[in-house]
Amino acid sequence: MTANTDTALSASLQAVLDGRWADTRKVVRDHIQAAGLVPQAGVPLADYRARMLEAMAAMVPLGFPAQGFSSDDAPGDPGAAITAIETLGYGDLSLMVKAGVQWGLFGGAVENLGTAAHHREYLSGLIDLDVLGCFAMTETGHGSDVQQLETTATYDAATQEFVIDSPTPSARKDYIGGAAEHARYAAVFAQLRTAGPGQDRQGYGVHCFVVPIRDEAGHDLPGVTTSDCGYKGGLPGVDNGRIVFDQVRIPRTSLLNRYADVDPDGTYRSPIESDNRRFFTMLGTLVRGRVTVGASAGAAGRLALTLAVKYALHRRQFEGPGDGGALLLLDYRTHQRRLLPLVARAYAFALAQNAVTAQLHEVQSVPADTVDPDAMRRLESRAAAIKVGHSSLASHAAIEARTACGGAGYMAENRLPLIRDDLDVFTTFEGDNLVLTQLVAKDLLTAYAADVDDLDTVGWVRFAASMARDVALEKTAVRQILQSVLDSSDEAPEDSDLTDPETQLALLTGREDHLVRTVAARLRRATDDDADAFEVFTQTQDHLIKAGQAHIDRLALESFQHAVEELPADSPERAVLATVRDLFVYSTLEDDLGWFLMHRFVSVERAKAIRRGVNDLCERLRPVADDLVDAFGVPAVALDVPMLG
Amino acid sequence: MTANTDTALSASLQAVLDGRWADTRKVVRDHIQAAGLVPQAGVPLADYRARMLEAMAAMVPLGFPAQGFSSDDAPGDPGAAITAIETLGYGDLSLMVKAGVQWGLFGGAVENLGTAAHHREYLSGLIDLDVLGCFAMTETGHGSDVQQLETTATYDAATQEFVIDSPTPSARKDYIGGAAEHARYAAVFAQLRTAGPGQDRQGYGVHCFVVPIRDEAGHDLPGVTTSDCGYKGGLPGVDNGRIVFDQVRIPRTSLLNRYADVDPDGTYRSPIESDNRRFFTMLGTLVRGRVTVGASAGAAGRLALTLAVKYALHRRQFEGPGDGGALLLLDYRTHQRRLLPLVARAYAFALAQNAVTAQLHEVQSVPADTVDPDAMRRLESRAAAIKVGHSSLASHAAIEARTACGGAGYMAENRLPLIRDDLDVFTTFEGDNLVLTQLVAKDLLTAYAADVDDLDTVGWVRFAASMARDVALEKTAVRQILQSVLDSSDEAPEDSDLTDPETQLALLTGREDHLVRTVAARLRRATDDDADAFEVFTQTQDHLIKAGQAHIDRLALESFQHAVEELPADSPERAVLATVRDLFVYSTLEDDLGWFLMHRFVSVERAKAIRRGVNDLCERLRPVADDLVDAFGVPAVALDVPMLG
Repeated sequence: MTANTDTALSASLQAVLDGRWADTRKVVRDHIQAAGLVPQAGVPLADYRARMLEAMAAMVPLGFPAQGFSSDDAPGDPGAAITAIETLGYGDLSLMVKAGVQWGLFGGAVENLGTAAHHREYLSGLIDLDVLGCFAMTETGHGSDVQQLETTATYDAATQEFVIDSPTPSARKDYIGGAAEHARYAAVFAQLRTAGPGQDRQGYGVHCFVVPIRDEAGHDLPGVTTSDCGYKGGLPGVDNGRIVFDQVRIPRTSLLNRYADVDPDGTYRSPIESDNRRFFTMLGTLVRGRVTVGASAGAAGRLALTLAVKYALHRRQFEGPGDGGALLLLDYRTHQRRLLPLVARAYAFALAQNAVTAQLHEVQSVPADTVDPDAMRRLESRAAAIKVGHSSLASHAAIEARTACGGAGYMAENRLPLIRDDLDVFTTFEGDNLVLTQLVAKDLLTAYAADVDDLDTVGWVRFAASMARDVALEKTAVRQILQSVLDSSDEAPEDSDLTDPETQLALLTGREDHLVRTVAARLRRATDDDADAFEVFTQTQDHLIKAGQAHIDRLALESFQHAVEELPADSPERAVLATVRDLFVYSTLEDDLGWFLMHRFVSVERAKAIRRGVNDLCERLRPVADDLVDAFGVPAVALDVPMLG
Repeated sequence: MTANTDTALSASLQAVLDGRWADTRKVVRDHIQAAGLVPQAGVPLADYRARMLEAMAAMVPLGFPAQGFSSDDAPGDPGAAITAIETLGYGDLSLMVKAGVQWGLFGGAVENLGTAAHHREYLSGLIDLDVLGCFAMTETGHGSDVQQLETTATYDAATQEFVIDSPTPSARKDYIGGAAEHARYAAVFAQLRTAGPGQDRQGYGVHCFVVPIRDEAGHDLPGVTTSDCGYKGGLPGVDNGRIVFDQVRIPRTSLLNRYADVDPDGTYRSPIESDNRRFFTMLGTLVRGRVTVGASAGAAGRLALTLAVKYALHRRQFEGPGDGGALLLLDYRTHQRRLLPLVARAYAFALAQNAVTAQLHEVQSVPADTVDPDAMRRLESRAAAIKVGHSSLASHAAIEARTACGGAGYMAENRLPLIRDDLDVFTTFEGDNLVLTQLVAKDLLTAYAADVDDLDTVGWVRFAASMARDVALEKTAVRQILQSVLDSSDEAPEDSDLTDPETQLALLTGREDHLVRTVAARLRRATDDDADAFEVFTQTQDHLIKAGQAHIDRLALESFQHAVEELPADSPERAVLATVRDLFVYSTLEDDLGWFLMHRFVSVERAKAIRRGVNDLCERLRPVADDLVDAFGVPAVALDVPMLG
């Protein structure tokens, strides 16, 4: 491929990546550039936090904080709101997280779990930062397993109040962004307990309450004790903190009551009978946070890759052929292999991210009660899948980018260590990636059945085993393509059926189906009379995780192929994008070559051709590497670092 | 395996890992504990640096700084000196690097490149910190390719001085530990240029000079301009800086003249005729730095794994079977797979590290001119190999440990992010791991021939191609074992010949030999008449790197097997250590299963048994996991973190 000096190629590719909310991206890019929003090292926590609060205020006039919410006048634009926060990943992730907590998590809880009175009371202040909030879900003892939260909200009919309490040390709210300093309100997730007239008090599971935690002067309110998590592995501008409640009384109306309410007399009412189902329905409305976190991580990963690719096109090392002087780093095969497959994967997940953002936009642009539960469930599963894939990729890319820039990469002035540090926790928060991957795989096994919400592990294993026959039918067409992949052998990518989109999809779909089918077969043993279903589950866990990972790759490929097909046939950008897709596929196959060989999806000869193919594709993309990263559209200020000077 | 509550097991294993310099380890562990040497977040650079300088001073009375050097009275104990710095990896890596720069790099240059006059002038002050130095090798434009350094040292016979100069911006000394604040002297690597009487001035390659850079008050001396690298991706207590020289004059005797000297009249003399050979001989004497860096990284990696394993034995999540409450994290298979193979690999490289430290000790305990050049060359190659393997493992382990501890792992108070940040650059400094791996592979291909030092890339390719026939003979015995591995199939590790040491070694040796043989065959094409040797080299680079990696794994296995064989037959510690070794082998095979399948080293059935074997071995080691990490002997103060409280 030949490089385009006129940047027409990168502009065309950027249009593909920018997608539907390109205008929003432009607004935020321009704002990053104008405000000089870049991460900085060595700023004391208090200063960094204060600066981020100011930076948030400066974003309010841009309009997108308001776009996240529907109002009487307008339906809101969730896609634009997510894309705006995503684009902050090109600036400073501390700001992205502060903004995400305020408008996405706290705002999302009020919007989606609250009703009209809550919207009237909080939304406009929440948008313009008069009402600063935090999202108090995680506890010291309970992160991934939110149903086991210990904080209690006990209804007292005598005063028509809920009493919020942290009964144990492990019930302490922990790692809560905003809780250390700025938040005056918390959306608190707690076990609701109440008694109707003449009834015994009963627990109804986790619900969300708006709890004031600080006065105007920033002091803890009575019964509330906040503390500061201090320095973290990154994100110095986010004031993460802890909250302990000691019998804090709040009005009955502080329950965000869209899915459940408590009458003044203490009677509990909900349109959803099952506690588990209700809980998961409430959690589901908060899917926007998960989508946003994946999107922002992806942007920061693209920034890191842009820095590393541009450095590799700037820095020379060792002698070159003839008298041409030293080679550029990116002319070395090992360096190409280090960075270009990650660039290809970044394309795949950027496109998959756009798809899930659009899917969320559709679901959240209609009244919540008209949403098809199946569509909701599919969205949640895909949001989890893309969050895992995108944040893992981004974190890995930032680490590799730092290393690929050697000593320069370790200098804070070149920002790669800051990006790496900030990104690290994106694989943990809004759902630990391993736990989410398991969730994704479970959904595959049970065909997104809502019934499983009521089941514990043992129950789930039995259910999945009973479902397995239905979901795991062999797909004959896929089988035929796979057989032809196995039978034929070839050399270079240009002649290979591995660059045929149908074959590519057959390979990744075939792997996923095989893994789902075989894990289902293993789970079926749990229905044997003498089987210990829990033991069977534990024994199968790594297999289940692998099925989830295979699904994530397949989703990314589908989005990628769709994007290629949308481009004009014979256009240069289509040719380049198809080659990037091929590199994504080849390197994905190479990363799991043992599996593909073991399961006779590819022959030994074909496996060797795949390894060579990665080399060939890297070499073909080398001349357009600069265009490929320019298409990410990183603002100039983010690339203004000494090592590129 | 059953857990030993009496810690006898961990004590026995610790004795194996502590090895020959156990006493030194104990001294440093006790010192870490007594002085509370742990990394801290949020300390301003100036304070952290000052504190590290004080901490260095506190180590002088422990004696090991002096042990690094031979004197008239005593021969020195290089093994103890390295082991002492290694053990600082359990404390604070900032201190380890400061100490390593002062006593290892700066001190090592004076000791090994200088002669009696230099030793008299500098060594005692260097040991007790009256003479603070830095090691000014790397330049802004030249990191891995040290022969191309641009700083010049031009001899002026009229004044009998060398003139040190930075002729270009890329000649600036960069990232130099100690250069920002504390160092008063620099060991400067520069291109020596001189003219004997009646001759034209000529360049003789890179040599090392002791150059004063600051006065007692800490101000730059005339002609010297230092600056500060500021914040980095970690190591906040190390004052990395830059140095620019503008025609700085130093006495003729400032040349460290063990391997070359300049007469007062400007005549250049060296016992080693070839500039390249001389340069590599000088570099070779600095091998201690590389050994120390690998060792210290390994210690910090073990610390990170200890924190993560202990957290996984402390933290419960989700429900367990029956009414037993939530499972410990380490009871989940995915969590075992995340941590225990890394623990096994940490054992492998700790043992391989001990072997290379001992090898260096032997070489450096005799007068330098009596060292067999082949032994020296083998030491250099092994030092590079173990540095790569150990630092890669450690960096990866720290990242995985952070992630495995979830939100708690991201809190600076639990130290994992600090360890991760400090460790990151160990894969870069003292030789970038990719460049070193290539060096290791090149040595394999040319059988450690010293002649190759004179060759450029094209020359090296031709030489390697000519050598290839000799080094790449098939080893028949290995082939036979491999064939039997391929022919038989088995299930559980306890019945498998994959737990037979000879078979294990045959697999890793067979892979290495195959890769070396095939890369040699590819390089041989470069000797064809129409071949572009440089192009052939570039095309073969990823293959070469893989050969180097395979060699590194094999070295680690050999050390591991040796350690197991040393233990009493039928002792409990031998059984456990053999199982840890098996997990190292199984997970190493699993990580590269595609290759072993493609090259028909294992059958498909055997490959599946390997995957299952990793699970089985993790499960067998689970009950002794705490003993395994206790055997690392991390001081209690390093484990005194809130998440384990």
